[in-house]
Amino acid sequence: MVRAGMTARIDQFHAIAVSTLAHRLAGEGRSIIHMEFGQPSTGAPAKAIEKAQHVLATDPMGYWESQALKARIARSYADSDGLSVEPQQIILTCGASPALVMALTLRFAPGARVALARPGYVAYRNTLRSLHMEPVELECGPDERFNITAAALAAMEPAPDGLILASPANPTGTVIPPEEMAAIAQVCRARGIRVISDEIYHGLTYDGAQARSTLAFDPDAVIINSFSKYFSMAGWRLGWMVVPLDQVDQARARMGNLTLTPPVLSQHAGLVAFDCGDELEGHVRTYARNRQILLDALPELGLARIAPPDGAFYIWADIAHLTDDSMAFCLKLLEDTGIATAPGIDFDPVEGHHFFRISFAVSTPLVEEAIARMKPWFAARLAERAVGA
Amino acid sequence: MVRAGMTARIDQFHAIAVSTLAHRLAGEGRSIIHMEFGQPSTGAPAKAIEKAQHVLATDPMGYWESQALKARIARSYADSDGLSVEPQQIILTCGASPALVMALTLRFAPGARVALARPGYVAYRNTLRSLHMEPVELECGPDERFNITAAALAAMEPAPDGLILASPANPTGTVIPPEEMAAIAQVCRARGIRVISDEIYHGLTYDGAQARSTLAFDPDAVIINSFSKYFSMAGWRLGWMVVPLDQVDQARARMGNLTLTPPVLSQHAGLVAFDCGDELEGHVRTYARNRQILLDALPELGLARIAPPDGAFYIWADIAHLTDDSMAFCLKLLEDTGIATAPGIDFDPVEGHHFFRISFAVSTPLVEEAIARMKPWFAARLAERAVGA
Repeated sequence: MVRAGMTARIDQFHAIAVSTLAHRLAGEGRSIIHMEFGQPSTGAPAKAIEKAQHVLATDPMGYWESQALKARIARSYADSDGLSVEPQQIILTCGASPALVMALTLRFAPGARVALARPGYVAYRNTLRSLHMEPVELECGPDERFNITAAALAAMEPAPDGLILASPANPTGTVIPPEEMAAIAQVCRARGIRVISDEIYHGLTYDGAQARSTLAFDPDAVIINSFSKYFSMAGWRLGWMVVPLDQVDQARARMGNLTLTPPVLSQHAGLVAFDCGDELEGHVRTYARNRQILLDALPELGLARIAPPDGAFYIWADIAHLTDDSMAFCLKLLEDTGIATAPGIDFDPVEGHHFFRISFAVSTPLVEEAIARMKPWFAARLAERAVGA
Repeated sequence: MVRAGMTARIDQFHAIAVSTLAHRLAGEGRSIIHMEFGQPSTGAPAKAIEKAQHVLATDPMGYWESQALKARIARSYADSDGLSVEPQQIILTCGASPALVMALTLRFAPGARVALARPGYVAYRNTLRSLHMEPVELECGPDERFNITAAALAAMEPAPDGLILASPANPTGTVIPPEEMAAIAQVCRARGIRVISDEIYHGLTYDGAQARSTLAFDPDAVIINSFSKYFSMAGWRLGWMVVPLDQVDQARARMGNLTLTPPVLSQHAGLVAFDCGDELEGHVRTYARNRQILLDALPELGLARIAPPDGAFYIWADIAHLTDDSMAFCLKLLEDTGIATAPGIDFDPVEGHHFFRISFAVSTPLVEEAIARMKPWFAARLAERAVGA
């Protein structure tokens, strides 16, 4: 029997401190550009809001699970990836975060060693630790395009119990190419590694990058997704898991006990959002424009070592030539220019002190304004370092 | 180091099978009275809905935490219980279920032994198991008013690491009297037992029963509550924890990683709901009326062994004279009369085969209709048993 031990201590999300300062400065009348969190500045599609207004006026809204939404999500895998998914394999959740908690308790026990990319989304590490599982971080630098490779996974001794995949990834935006995904799936099959694939940035790819669901490579993977990014509905708290058929009962038992059903209004609105492709693709075009503007401008600012942002809406930039304290750097950038960004230490406790993350899920004029403010600021920082050296 | 073991297998919520059949029968045109789940049949207060409509029309709704709501919830402890709670001690959650997950990972590690009443809410047991903690069920019969006593807790060897309290309780509705709560708190202090108190039915008490927050007895307890019951907002998925000041950082880290912020719309509406006392107290008067009608009628049906429903909106009735298979009993009652109820096995795996739970959070005419349908049905069951014996 497992003996009761210490409760888990986990890290804060440092971007929250940046955001808190940003809101304080805004309260003092400063003009703030919020590029610190991964959330669209746009709202839900207009027709989804219309539907929500109607439901609000007519439905008392108890605990409820939309069978129509589950069927629609299942169908989306056929539409986008040619995959056959049954509606019962869809477990609706209050966003991707509780979906990860359920997926981890479904697939692993305390003590399980779960591999993940470093840099990576801070909650993977912290949620694993909260559940007394062991995050095993694989250092992924520019040579690995900042993400997991089959070779790195094959070289792990002993083999990990599990793997969390993210493609497009946060904070880098890199997409794992299909042939590499196939190779990763093969290693996982051969070594008995269970896969959880966070696909929250699917639908957001650029320049021909393609992100197929991991289900296409590993039908035994548990998939996590949400309405927070592509569907622009972060504050609605709606997400889902796709689980293998033999896991449906235990996954549903977790939903019924650990979270219960997601918000009723969000389920109704989410179903309509699937029919709002025109509006949503408009957002993707904005992100694509913002990304290009940043990729063109950042080298001029001295930011040349950037992860290839194949997808998502982030720039992950190396600032080793300017600082070895990314938190102080982000706070100073915010204080001087009003631009809020996320310090690298949130995503990479080892190398993150010389990286920062910019979210470009804002309007294009704000991206242009941010560049205009950053140009003289980065020039001044470079000049300081030159004098200092 | 903990070794990775088997993933946890947990139980289904059997009332869901009853509810599924109920919906199928309704689809066939049958008249169904839903008394199987613990959810008000009423909607959110009218002014809360109005506020939500306004927010929907004007706010893009990203990740957000309402400081005003946290302050208002903190103040409610001063108003109702004369307790001083700081806004930062309030952690907003997507309902009480994920609050329990966070509270358990905050206070305990895998292997921890956590005491709880049997009968009790099914999710306590299952969520503990999902987290590889050990539920230690204390049998609570009529002599203990179906709930935890200080004496039972003092007699446990070895002392448990933790205790989940629920008063008013589910499925019984019993309230632990203040002097017993004080004694329980004293035992917990003396034996180093950490308390999590589920106060989701606070505000719903009858006949002078009083349920003060456990914080009044144990300032170190973690409190769980939600807008699903008293505030009649189950489908809005909004709840909260109150954590001791020295636990705020780790509790916030769990919120930031395990769930993120609750639905924006629900937070706005929840704040307004605090000012809708007239409408909400009207619901409580309905429940009080329903309760009395049931307490008057059930003995005539042969249901005389009933837990004292001091609060919540449930009747927990012993049906040992009619069945030793509560699931078959509930399905038969539903098929014959259209009344959906919850089988006792959800709440008590040992004694629950001869109990069932009726929720009276429906309109009074529906309660009266349910009694009218049940009368001949129970008479027939009694007659059958008399013939059989």
